Amino acid sequence: MSYLPIKQLLQSTETGHEVTVKGWVRTKRESKNAIFIALNDGSTIHNIQAVAEPGQFSEDLIKLVTTGACIAITGQLVESLGSGQSVEVKATNIHLYGPADPEKYPLQPKRHSLEFLREIAHLRPRTNTFSAILRIRHALAFAVNKYFNDNGFFYLHTPIITASDAEGAGEMFRVTTLDLDNLPHTEEGKIDFSEDFFGREANLTVSGQLEGELGALALGKIYTFGPTFRAENSNTTRHLAEFWMIEPEMAFYELEDNMNLAEDFVKYVIRYALDNCTDDLAFLENRLKEEEKTRKKEEQSDMSLLEKLRFVVDNDFQRLTYTEAIDILMNSKPAKKGQFQFEVKWGIDLQSEHERYLVEKHFKKPVILTNYPREIKAFYMKQDADGKTVRAMDVLFPGIGEIIGGSQREDDLDKLMTRIHEVGIEPEGLWWYLETRKFGSAPHAGFGLGFERLVLFVTGMGNIRDVIPFPRTPKSADF
Amino acid sequence: MSYLPIKQLLQSTETGHEVTVKGWVRTKRESKNAIFIALNDGSTIHNIQAVAEPGQFSEDLIKLVTTGACIAITGQLVESLGSGQSVEVKATNIHLYGPADPEKYPLQPKRHSLEFLREIAHLRPRTNTFSAILRIRHALAFAVNKYFNDNGFFYLHTPIITASDAEGAGEMFRVTTLDLDNLPHTEEGKIDFSEDFFGREANLTVSGQLEGELGALALGKIYTFGPTFRAENSNTTRHLAEFWMIEPEMAFYELEDNMNLAEDFVKYVIRYALDNCTDDLAFLENRLKEEEKTRKKEEQSDMSLLEKLRFVVDNDFQRLTYTEAIDILMNSKPAKKGQFQFEVKWGIDLQSEHERYLVEKHFKKPVILTNYPREIKAFYMKQDADGKTVRAMDVLFPGIGEIIGGSQREDDLDKLMTRIHEVGIEPEGLWWYLETRKFGSAPHAGFGLGFERLVLFVTGMGNIRDVIPFPRTPKSADF
Repeated sequence: MSYLPIKQLLQSTETGHEVTVKGWVRTKRESKNAIFIALNDGSTIHNIQAVAEPGQFSEDLIKLVTTGACIAITGQLVESLGSGQSVEVKATNIHLYGPADPEKYPLQPKRHSLEFLREIAHLRPRTNTFSAILRIRHALAFAVNKYFNDNGFFYLHTPIITASDAEGAGEMFRVTTLDLDNLPHTEEGKIDFSEDFFGREANLTVSGQLEGELGALALGKIYTFGPTFRAENSNTTRHLAEFWMIEPEMAFYELEDNMNLAEDFVKYVIRYALDNCTDDLAFLENRLKEEEKTRKKEEQSDMSLLEKLRFVVDNDFQRLTYTEAIDILMNSKPAKKGQFQFEVKWGIDLQSEHERYLVEKHFKKPVILTNYPREIKAFYMKQDADGKTVRAMDVLFPGIGEIIGGSQREDDLDKLMTRIHEVGIEPEGLWWYLETRKFGSAPHAGFGLGFERLVLFVTGMGNIRDVIPFPRTPKSADF
Repeated sequence: MSYLPIKQLLQSTETGHEVTVKGWVRTKRESKNAIFIALNDGSTIHNIQAVAEPGQFSEDLIKLVTTGACIAITGQLVESLGSGQSVEVKATNIHLYGPADPEKYPLQPKRHSLEFLREIAHLRPRTNTFSAILRIRHALAFAVNKYFNDNGFFYLHTPIITASDAEGAGEMFRVTTLDLDNLPHTEEGKIDFSEDFFGREANLTVSGQLEGELGALALGKIYTFGPTFRAENSNTTRHLAEFWMIEPEMAFYELEDNMNLAEDFVKYVIRYALDNCTDDLAFLENRLKEEEKTRKKEEQSDMSLLEKLRFVVDNDFQRLTYTEAIDILMNSKPAKKGQFQFEVKWGIDLQSEHERYLVEKHFKKPVILTNYPREIKAFYMKQDADGKTVRAMDVLFPGIGEIIGGSQREDDLDKLMTRIHEVGIEPEGLWWYLETRKFGSAPHAGFGLGFERLVLFVTGMGNIRDVIPFPRTPKSADF
C-alpha cells in the first residue's frame, strides 16, 4: 500500500485516481450524510480532509476514529467542495493503526497552554504550533549548512567532551565515569582523576571556537554546528543548559569581513525560511497576532512576524562602535530621565535595556556594535592599537538582544600571552592553541550564533524552551 | 587586499592579471634564478606555485619563508611552464603573516606516522592526508543533510543530556554539577541527586532513537545527526568514546521500506563524495596504494579505493535473513575446517569473522541481514510472528563490518511491555515512550549509521581516530 505525504497530495492538480493517506486524526465531524475527518501526517501544517459515508463503515470503527488516532484512508482523490482545500479523499477504506482514547489522550482539539505542552514534550510535535516550529527549525538548520557549503566553508565537528576549561565562558558540566559512591583519592587526599575515563577532569564544551580556530588555520574557512552547554542556574525564557551553536571561523578575515559575513549569513537563513516555510510562518504569524491581542497596547509589536523578518532581510544592519553607542545612550532620553536601571558610562557591559534602546528605539533595526573595551571581552580577541578596545562585534536583534557575538582573534603570540596572564588563565592547558600563533600565525576571525535564538526570532515565540524539541533546564531533563 | 581561494585560482582560464594568494608554505625550492614556493590554503589538496626572483626580495624575508609559515603573495597570474599546474603566480610582493621556525615546527616536509600526527591533532589538518579527510568528511555531512532534506525528512535535535538510561546500549558518561569533594547525601546515606543540576541522575546520550521515534510519530519522517557517547574502555581502531551518529526514523515504514531507504541513502552519500571530492579521493587512493605495498600480499585489497566506492554505488546490496546467513556460514569452508574462532549456530551474535566471510568472501558485496533472533536484539524491535525473530536489519560493509543497524519498531503496546519486563527494564522511566503506543500508535522503522565508520570507508583509512578532528578515547581528551 504505497502512499504520498499529505503535503504532496494537497498540491495535486489531477484528481479521480485512488490514493492512500496515512496520518493522525486532528478532528472528526459527523453529519447525517457524511463524516468529515481531518488528517495530518506532519509533512505540512495543512490537514487533508477525508469524507466517509456513514453507512459504509462499521460504527465500532468510526467510534475509534477520534482525535489523535492513527489511521490510513484509501479512496478517490476528488476536488473539494468545501473551502480551505482544493482536494479531498472520498473514503472507501479506513484502516485503524492505533486508537487514542478520548478520555486519556491529552491533546484534544482545544487551546492548550505552552506550559502544559512543555510537560508533554513527547506529544507536542503533534500540535500545529510545534510541528510548524520544528519544520522551520529544520529549514533553518538546512539553510545554515547550505550557506556555508555553498560559500566554501567546511563543517568541522569540534569535540563535545573537553578537558580544556580555558575559555572561562561559564559554569560547566562535569563528565565522569568515576563511581561517586567510591571515589578514588590520591595520597594527598584529593580525588584521583587519573582514574577517570579520560585520565583527567573532563567537561562538556561551552564553545567549539578554540578548536574551530585550529581548523581555520589549516582549512581556511570552517564552521561548527553542534550542541553546547552551560551549567548556569538560570530559569529564564532566554537560557537553556543545552543548546545548539553555529561558529564559523575564517583565516584571513578581519573585523570588517567578519561583520559582512555575519550580516550576509543571517539574512540568507531568514530569507530561506521566508521562501521555504510560507505556510508555517503564516500560521505562526496569526498565532502571534492572537497572542498579542491579550497584551497591553504598549507591549504589542508594531510589526507582524513576517514584516519583522522581511525588515531584517531588506535593510542594512546599523554598524557603530561601542564608544559611539555609549555616547548615544548617555545622550538618550531614558538616560537623562534616569529611566535606565543600570548607569551608562564607558566601560560597562551593556545591559539588555541599553541594547533594546539602541535596536528598538534609536535605530529601529539590527545593530552591529564593535570595538568593545577589552576588560569586558574574552582574552582571545584582537587588541586595537589604542590599548583600550578589542575587535569584537555583537549583532543585536529586536526582541532577542545579542544573537551573534564574535571578533577578530588575537594572532600575535606576545599580546595573547600578556592577556592570558592578565586574566589569570593557565597557559599550559592551551599549549595547542598557542602553537597556532607560534607556527604560521594568520589574521583570522569568527563568531558564534545561538541557533535557538535564531529560531526564536524567526518563529516569533517568546520562550526558548518552545523552540527546541526537548529542553534541558535546571531541574528538568525529561524525555 | 581582496583575494581568491587557491581552489578557484587554479581553475582560472584567464591569466595576466594581478592576484593575491594567502596560505601556508608547503615547500620552498631555491635555484640560482628563481625561488619556487608551493602555497596551500586548505581550500583544495593542490598547492599554487609562486615564483620569485631572488634579487627582488630581501634575503631576511626569504629566509623566513619556510614550511608552515603563513604568507600572502601578490603578483601576476601566468600560465605555468612546469608540469602539474596550469597557472602560477609571478611574485611581486611577499607579506609574512607568521613564521614557522624550522627547528621547532613539527610538520616538516617528510613522511610522518599517523601515530605521531595524532599527538599533534591541532596541526595535522595542515597535512595533505588530514585536510583531504576533513574536506571529504564535510562533503559527506552535507550530503547527509541534503539527502534527507530533499526527501522530506526533518532534522530533529534530540537531547544530548538525558535522564533516561533505558536503552541499555552500553556504559554511559555521567553528567553532573555536584561538588565531588562534598557530595550531598540523603538520610539513607545515598548520594542525593535531587541536588544535582537536573534534580536527578543524568547521562550523555547513547542514541537519539527513542526521542527520534517521538518525532516520527508526529512529523512523519525525521532524522538526527549529532554526537553520541559510549563510556566503553575499548582501545581499538573501531571505537570512539564520542562519535557522530545519523538516525532516521519514519512513520509508516516497515522493514522492507527501511532497507530500501538505508541502501538508497548510503549509495547517495558515497556517490556525492565521488562526484564532489574527486581530487581528495584521488590523493587518498594513491596514499592507500602506497600503504598497501608495505602489507603482505594476502592482506592487500584486490580493489583500489575508488573501485571499492564505485562497486558499492553500482551494485545491489545482498539481502538475506539471519537464518539464511547461519546456513551459509555453517556450510562454509572455514566452518568445516574449524577456522572460525567462534562457533556458528542459530542464536549466536555474529562475530566480525562471520560478517567478513559473508561480505568479503561469499557475496563479495554489501549485505543486509534481517530478522535476527530477538534475544540478541534490543527490546524495541518489532517481533516477528514466529515468536523467535525480530524485524531487525544490519547493513554490513567490506572492511568495516556493521555500518548500519536498524529495525522496524514494536508498535504494539502489549508486546512491547512484555519484552520490557523480559529484559528487566523499568518501564516508569519510559512512560513518554510508551505513550506513543497508547495514543495513535503507527508502524514505524528507523536505523542508525555511525558517521565515522562511513568516513572510514570512504577515505580508506584504517583507524577511526584519523577520521574525526579531535578523537575522544580512554585516557585521551586532548585539544
